[in-house]
Amino acid sequence: MTRIKLIIQYDGACFSGWQVQPGKRTVQGELEKALEFLLKEKVRTYASGRTDSGVSSFGQVAHFDTEQELNLKKLQDGLNALTPDDIAVTSLEIAPEGFDARFSVKKKTYQYRFYISKYKLPLFDKTAFRVNDYVDLEKMKEACGYFIGEHDFESFVSQKSGKTNFVRTVYDAKIVELEDGLFAFEITGNGFLYNMVRIVFGTILKAGYGQIKPEDIKGLIEAKSRAKAGKTMPPYPLFMKKVDYDS
Amino acid sequence: MTRIKLIIQYDGACFSGWQVQPGKRTVQGELEKALEFLLKEKVRTYASGRTDSGVSSFGQVAHFDTEQELNLKKLQDGLNALTPDDIAVTSLEIAPEGFDARFSVKKKTYQYRFYISKYKLPLFDKTAFRVNDYVDLEKMKEACGYFIGEHDFESFVSQKSGKTNFVRTVYDAKIVELEDGLFAFEITGNGFLYNMVRIVFGTILKAGYGQIKPEDIKGLIEAKSRAKAGKTMPPYPLFMKKVDYDS
Repeated sequence: MTRIKLIIQYDGACFSGWQVQPGKRTVQGELEKALEFLLKEKVRTYASGRTDSGVSSFGQVAHFDTEQELNLKKLQDGLNALTPDDIAVTSLEIAPEGFDARFSVKKKTYQYRFYISKYKLPLFDKTAFRVNDYVDLEKMKEACGYFIGEHDFESFVSQKSGKTNFVRTVYDAKIVELEDGLFAFEITGNGFLYNMVRIVFGTILKAGYGQIKPEDIKGLIEAKSRAKAGKTMPPYPLFMKKVDYDS
Repeated sequence: MTRIKLIIQYDGACFSGWQVQPGKRTVQGELEKALEFLLKEKVRTYASGRTDSGVSSFGQVAHFDTEQELNLKKLQDGLNALTPDDIAVTSLEIAPEGFDARFSVKKKTYQYRFYISKYKLPLFDKTAFRVNDYVDLEKMKEACGYFIGEHDFESFVSQKSGKTNFVRTVYDAKIVELEDGLFAFEITGNGFLYNMVRIVFGTILKAGYGQIKPEDIKGLIEAKSRAKAGKTMPPYPLFMKKVDYDS
């Protein structure tokens, strides 16, 4: 048996997220359709984690197993020819010994893109959230710091989630300027709860707008109450940036 | 009389360029329509220069004159409300004494965006040109240097242009990495000929692909022959980045 590791970039705008769902256009669905066509067998792919409807990815990682002898270069070319234009397989290789796209994850990094402007800006607005120009960027940067570390993130998870363990470690959380006026909130952790990044950024924005003080975030975390945190931000400015593994 | 200076961002994808043309959707046309509605008079705008069909801008500059007393904040809000979503007026102020959006230009900076990948990448492909991964980026960087200085750029102008003086000064030409894998060729000069940036980048790409040596560019410039230079690259990855004036 050979395990193949894939890295996949996708524009989430027209997908109902990563995971296969009957009757829905999903990244996994399109990828598996192309794999089945090329390998002439049903193939199940396993990703580092799902991404929601509308969320994009620079570096989603997935694996699948096959008994076939593969020409890796040809398979990657074939996948890129057969999948629609909003999916690209940027890497395809034999997975390292013991690799599992989901269970071997060490760190994930997400990016939430935003721009600061009183007006909607056409060159940024499709992929970044508009933040009004009276926001205090320094306060947003300060707010980021409170999320770093091992915390119980129950306050930052959507009601829908059925999980009971909300403890996650955030290794880094910061705001970077991508180009003039275009920013990204970047967060790296050992894992993220359902909608967590979008709620965390909603909370950072509250600090930016002066609705809470950055230091209030400590209390919001301790409260373990979704009601206290910021709103769930829209999905389109969220990007899975990369997934790190040991090897 | 009051002269107003505007800075305009636009996504060029759905425009037939900047300049008003009968029956075509243009940036100037949409802007003047909104100005006429708000000021109840015909208004003529003058830009730093035209941009072609499909070319975008972060910082196009234009001016117009009026005898009216204006509330600048209200006018900017009104323009942003009335112009379509692919135009934004990011700045509106009283122009400095003697200012002319076209004739006072000191420097213009254009950006030609590209990404390096064997495969089409969905998150870059709409606004950046795909350059194959066997390109030699160092050679491209080297090629940039040959364009800096005062030169006769006749080799880098489209046949269409009726100009006879092809001498321009390029202050800077370089390749910058905007984010992982996404690059821009940035060129700053006192002015650019018709299609010049797109032909210059086409020539730099020839150097990157090894079809010419970077040092051959010296000869291409001296030849004053369009036939020797690279092809005219497509317009959608070209961005007018900014226009500098003395004041």
